[in-house]
Amino acid sequence: MNEKKLSLICFSGDFDKAVATFTLASGAAASGYQVNVFFTFWGYNVIKKASGHRFQGTGFLAKFFNFLMGGLNNLPLSRLNFCGISPKLMTYMMKKNNVATLNELIAASVALGVNFYACEMSMVILGTKLDDFLPTKGVIGVPKFLEISKGGQVIFI
Amino acid sequence: MNEKKLSLICFSGDFDKAVATFTLASGAAASGYQVNVFFTFWGYNVIKKASGHRFQGTGFLAKFFNFLMGGLNNLPLSRLNFCGISPKLMTYMMKKNNVATLNELIAASVALGVNFYACEMSMVILGTKLDDFLPTKGVIGVPKFLEISKGGQVIFI
Amino acid sequence: MNEKKLSLICFSGDFDKAVATFTLASGAAASGYQVNVFFTFWGYNVIKKASGHRFQGTGFLAKFFNFLMGGLNNLPLSRLNFCGISPKLMTYMMKKNNVATLNELIAASVALGVNFYACEMSMVILGTKLDDFLPTKGVIGVPKFLEISKGGQVIFI
Repeated sequence: MNEKKLSLICFSGDFDKAVATFTLASGAAASGYQVNVFFTFWGYNVIKKASGHRFQGTGFLAKFFNFLMGGLNNLPLSRLNFCGISPKLMTYMMKKNNVATLNELIAASVALGVNFYACEMSMVILGTKLDDFLPTKGVIGVPKFLEISKGGQVIFI
Repeated sequence: MNEKKLSLICFSGDFDKAVATFTLASGAAASGYQVNVFFTFWGYNVIKKASGHRFQGTGFLAKFFNFLMGGLNNLPLSRLNFCGISPKLMTYMMKKNNVATLNELIAASVALGVNFYACEMSMVILGTKLDDFLPTKGVIGVPKFLEISKGGQVIFI
Repeated sequence: MNEKKLSLICFSGDFDKAVATFTLASGAAASGYQVNVFFTFWGYNVIKKASGHRFQGTGFLAKFFNFLMGGLNNLPLSRLNFCGISPKLMTYMMKKNNVATLNELIAASVALGVNFYACEMSMVILGTKLDDFLPTKGVIGVPKFLEISKGGQVIFI
């Protein structure tokens, strides 16, 4: 842990946890850290190019789940979601107080050179293609993630 | 990771995860670790001085969210909460079995010199003042947290 | 963090997070890592021998909670659970795509020598016996966990 390296596993697809992921990612990158984010399970909704509900993937169940979960604009708050009103209120409060919104935090992370990785297993199960997502450095599994994160801190969100 | 240092990010405001946070914090401090806890997002309800529902913060939305979330006595269980009955049952079971309750774990953490830090962004968004919380070592952001946690293990709860 | 050692705290009893735990555990073990998994709170439902709802433990409340939570076959999905249908659909999708199911990931972790540890406090509160669980290397608390995980990466799930 003496290296300036931070690797995040973005497992959750909750709005609040996505804010935490990209606040840590952009903050660490701005502080000179090498930052890797591995998007898996629900977390992969965060980096879908399609930000709304869309039928994607191969097979009925995959299409159904992808539609249900939606994309960046449909991330729920982990508590007190109120049918999706709360993430919008929170974005309003962030803007009002001049705090970076989720979209701005993602843009900052990209601009600061944070490395995005997509989870191999999630892509197989949900039948999505790399092209459905924001640009990543690759599709990887656990062994490769361990190699990338070696010698640095790892955070599961 | 060779230093005896543990840094916790207390993001969740759930009763069970607060128990996990302070069990780890007090246990590590008792084992001679330097322990830092960074309270952010829902987690900051855990260290509010006001333990019940209270209108706090600047602006209508901040007051509304702060009231809704409440404080230490209102933390929900992340599953099977049953409208707040379960955390009380669990506290009863902890007492009955001579296990430290959440309040006792927090008191032990303070007594053992665990360092509390409040999240700058959460305070700006929810318009609260440092005075609304238990004593902390300061209000910090990501760069400072990385500096504090450097060389030790980091856990996101 | 220079050692090939990974220690997981399996706190959650959600189906999706159990999949994450055992994917990481088996993947790391297969890559030559020493892997320790500490099962605590809801996570301990994952390694109960009884895979269904069963009255276990000492005292009415313990029996009641143990029955409610059930075992490996009752783990809910953290979102979109649909009364337990989703974990079954997901297992179906995993099989269809030749991805290891949760049961297979657990079997692989055991075969690859992953060390399981049960949480002392959870066992006292819920009044269960070591015999109620899959074989573990012991019942431990925070100080022992810190000792075991020293020098490696720690992930809280």
